[in-house]
Order: sequence, then C-alpha cells, then structure tokens
Amino acid sequence: MSLASDAALPPDAADRPIGVFDSGVGGLTVLHELLVQLPHEDFVYLADTARFPYGPRSAEELQRFSLEIAEHLLTRRIKLLVVACNSASAAAAPALRERMMQTTLGVDVIGVVAPAAVHAVAATRNGKVGLLATDVTVRSGAYEEAITAIDPHVELTSVPCHDLAELIQLGFPASQELVDTVRGYCAPLREAGVDTVVLGSTHYPLVRPVIQRTLGRDVGLITSGIPLSRQVDHVLGSRGLGSAREGEGTYRFLCTGDVERFRATGTRFLQMPLTEVEHVTLPAGAQVGA
Amino acid sequence: MSLASDAALPPDAADRPIGVFDSGVGGLTVLHELLVQLPHEDFVYLADTARFPYGPRSAEELQRFSLEIAEHLLTRRIKLLVVACNSASAAAAPALRERMMQTTLGVDVIGVVAPAAVHAVAATRNGKVGLLATDVTVRSGAYEEAITAIDPHVELTSVPCHDLAELIQLGFPASQELVDTVRGYCAPLREAGVDTVVLGSTHYPLVRPVIQRTLGRDVGLITSGIPLSRQVDHVLGSRGLGSAREGEGTYRFLCTGDVERFRATGTRFLQMPLTEVEHVTLPAGAQVGA
Repeated sequence: MSLASDAALPPDAADRPIGVFDSGVGGLTVLHELLVQLPHEDFVYLADTARFPYGPRSAEELQRFSLEIAEHLLTRRIKLLVVACNSASAAAAPALRERMMQTTLGVDVIGVVAPAAVHAVAATRNGKVGLLATDVTVRSGAYEEAITAIDPHVELTSVPCHDLAELIQLGFPASQELVDTVRGYCAPLREAGVDTVVLGSTHYPLVRPVIQRTLGRDVGLITSGIPLSRQVDHVLGSRGLGSAREGEGTYRFLCTGDVERFRATGTRFLQMPLTEVEHVTLPAGAQVGA
Repeated sequence: MSLASDAALPPDAADRPIGVFDSGVGGLTVLHELLVQLPHEDFVYLADTARFPYGPRSAEELQRFSLEIAEHLLTRRIKLLVVACNSASAAAAPALRERMMQTTLGVDVIGVVAPAAVHAVAATRNGKVGLLATDVTVRSGAYEEAITAIDPHVELTSVPCHDLAELIQLGFPASQELVDTVRGYCAPLREAGVDTVVLGSTHYPLVRPVIQRTLGRDVGLITSGIPLSRQVDHVLGSRGLGSAREGEGTYRFLCTGDVERFRATGTRFLQMPLTEVEHVTLPAGAQVGA
C-alpha cells in the first residue's frame, strides 16, 4: 500500500469511488477493464444517454456537458475522474482538469486518448500506426497530437468510421453488413502497411475479433482500457488514494436517459452483471461539491 | 509458404477445410480464435447438439460419438481435425488419432487439453496451477496427466465446476448468481496460491472477466484457443497443408439438433456472424470417406 503523499487529504479520501463517464454504453468497455484491473476499488459510472451521441456535437457543447457531469460526480464524492469517451476526452480534458484542480482533493482527470497513444507508440515496430475512430475524434486531431508529442517520426493513418459505432450498438448478433463495413474501413490501413491500430472508440472492442481477422494476426490492436487502468492505478498509488480494501469493490450506474434501455444494452458492453442503475437529471441535478 | 513434405498428398489437399467439433456451442470460442489466427483457412464446424451435454456420458460413448463425427467430417474432405471439447479430447483423442491415420491424407487430430497444459506450464512462475473444468474432465485426469508429463514438479489444484457451463449457456445477461458461483469455485484456487489457471471448458472464456476480477489481475488465465491455433498452424505448415489463399477463408456449420437454436445461442460464443447452418443426422449420415 502507498502512503498518503498529500498532508491535506481528507481521512476518507482513499475510500471514495472513482467516477467514470461516457455519452452512453461504449465507456462500459473501459469500466470493464477497470473492474478487472482494479478489483478493490468502488466505481460510479455516469451515462449521458439523454444527449447521446456526442459525435455530432461541437467542442463547446462537449465541454459544457462534461463539466456538468463532473459537477454531478463531485456530489458523489469521487476521488478521480475517468473520461471514458474519445470525443469528450479530445474536446474537454483541459477544461475538466482546470475545474477539478479547484476541488479540495485536487481530483485527477484521466482520458482515453493519451494512454492509447502511448501504448501505440510503444507497440509499433515499423513506425506506422493506424487509427479507427468516429469522424469527430479524427477531426479533432487529438490522437495525431498525442502521438506526435511522444514520437514525431511515427506516421499515423486515420480512418473516420462514420457509422461503425452505431452498427455495433444495433448489430447484435454481428451481421454480415458489419463485417463488410469493418473490411471497408480496414482497407486503407492494410494499404498503408500499419503494424499497430488504435481502436479509437469505446464501441470498437466489441468487434475486435472481426477487425483482427480482417487485418491479420500480425497487426497489434490497441484499446484504451488496459493502459488507462494502469495509469489510474499509478495515479492512485502515487497520491496515496488506492483503496486498502481486501475484497471486491462495488460499482453502480447513473443514467440521464431511459434506465431500462441502458441496462439492456449495457450488459453486452460490460460483460458483467449491471447492478443498480439510478436516473439523474443534468444540468438541473448538478450541485457544486467536494 | 511451406512446401509439401509428403509426396503422396492429393493435389487439392491444402485447399481442403479444417474440421472442428464439439457437443454444442462451447467449441465456438475455439473456432473464434482459429478464425482470428488463421484467417486464410476454410473451416467446417460440427455441433453435436442432439446429444449435448457430453459431460454426463461415459468415455466409451464419447469415443463412439467422436468417431461418428470424424467419419462424417471425412465426407466433407477435411485436412485436419480439431476436437474443440475438453470431455471428447480427454476421452477420445487416441481413438480418433488411430482412425485418422488410416485415411489417405493421414489427417492429424488436435485436441484442447495438450495445448492448454503446455501453455499453463510455460506460464506459471510459482509452479502452482489451477484448473476449472467440468466434473467429467476433472475426473478423467487428462490435465493432470498432460501437465505432469511436461513438468512433474508443477502442482495442480483442480476444481470441478458442476453447473458453471450450464449457467453460462443460460445466463445472459450475466447474473449475480453467476458471479457468486464463479467466486465459490475460485475460492480453493485463491487458497492454494496458484498464479495460473486453466479455463478447462470451452464455455468459460465467456466469463473470463468475472474470473479475472475474482482471482485478481496477477493470476494468468489460460484458454485453449490461442495455443491450439498455433499448434494447428505449425502442423499445417510442417505438412505443407496451409492454405495459399490471400483473402479470408469461409466457415460453415453442421448441427445434429435444432438449427435455429444453435444459431441463436452460437453468435454469443463465436462473436462473429454465424453463416450457413446445415442439419445433419448421426450416425445415419456418416460414410467412410477421404
């Protein structure tokens, strides 16, 4: 166990939950890894399904939404904030960090873009990395920026996948249309000769096998879940905020839209039972906290 | 591409499909890895759902069933046979090998037990390996035998999981009952201090995250899929039987029970679209072939 490095930490700080949010169910693939990698922690996951999808929104809107969600999660006394959404990470991470640093605890903000970028640069052997992501994430240039900052020699080939996340959300069982769509989006990556591909949307891990089969087994696929979980672990450890619990922690859900619909779709993304789901209203329900 | 090492190989041998069988949908988790790892090969999967489950059957029955299935798959001109079922691998692999060596091609038989055992011995650092499997697989002693043959110093802790495969087949979305059941079966493994656990049923990969969360992230989980795929790849390569195709191969299904039910349950296990499913009758439909 790490020792508290911050004299001003409230005595219950390490026992507080980790906050995680996304526009919907996609971020549950990230929560999934957090639950596996950090079994002793408590989690509270907020799905802003009433305003799903975030893809077509402007950066200003995503900043406002993200700040509203963060305020709400502060009322739940979170000790760390995970942005489990590529669009929100790209658009709102700096604004969220600024707000969170004003809290008593100095809540850290961890998004999905940076851990995946680091992991991709570390994994590539030929310096050619591919990105599959939504239009808005590709347009934001967040992955390009993050990768170039680490190694300017890495060449990124980005493919905006207009309808893939939607197809995945609707498409169970996996349809031939979905396989054909994946094949189409992978074609430019095969042509570019990439040896590493970032799955830049939290929906894509659900079709990982289809992508792997299309690209061939020699291409490494990078998802945010595991590297993000490690970063969360490091941050908690270095700040003395890791749970000292021996047994498994709890996890629960907040949802701005239809609770039953979230529960029905969510299980497939979490691959674990969905426990308690509570409806919340944003921004009305938000209070300044912590 | 490897060169043919056998002068007697029929000219179309490398173009033939790989046969895979199981008592039902569980083996689709093995087919899943084969499709990802060997994208250029054709596959034909036979599900003996009319006689599912194999667990309570005697070794003699499983030998008879396996030989009937093998005869049928020979009429489909398979070039290699994968036994994607722990019970059938444990009970019938020697009898199948003997029969298959009589074919013109000398069809190789690869079961799930040996690749998982090798992988577990290679993975353990403290020499303590756990096994979660059905009663019949634990009773057969096949894993113990395979592991001891490789390294007699490895200590195996086996847990028969009476109802886990059934719970997984029924239990979607994952229920709290399933989580509690997994926790119960994992308790003796935690107590024994194993650092590596074999998921000795092809159903268990579907609850891998629940098992990983229960055991903690420092315990390595071994499934047959990837090591078995590698072994298939090596055997095909060494015999000059690997497909020379550039694009993706095909896969199709044979089923002795209800076709629609197989299709409905199967997609969840395959994580890819289920294509053509054909009904077959065993043993009546079986002919001596190849």
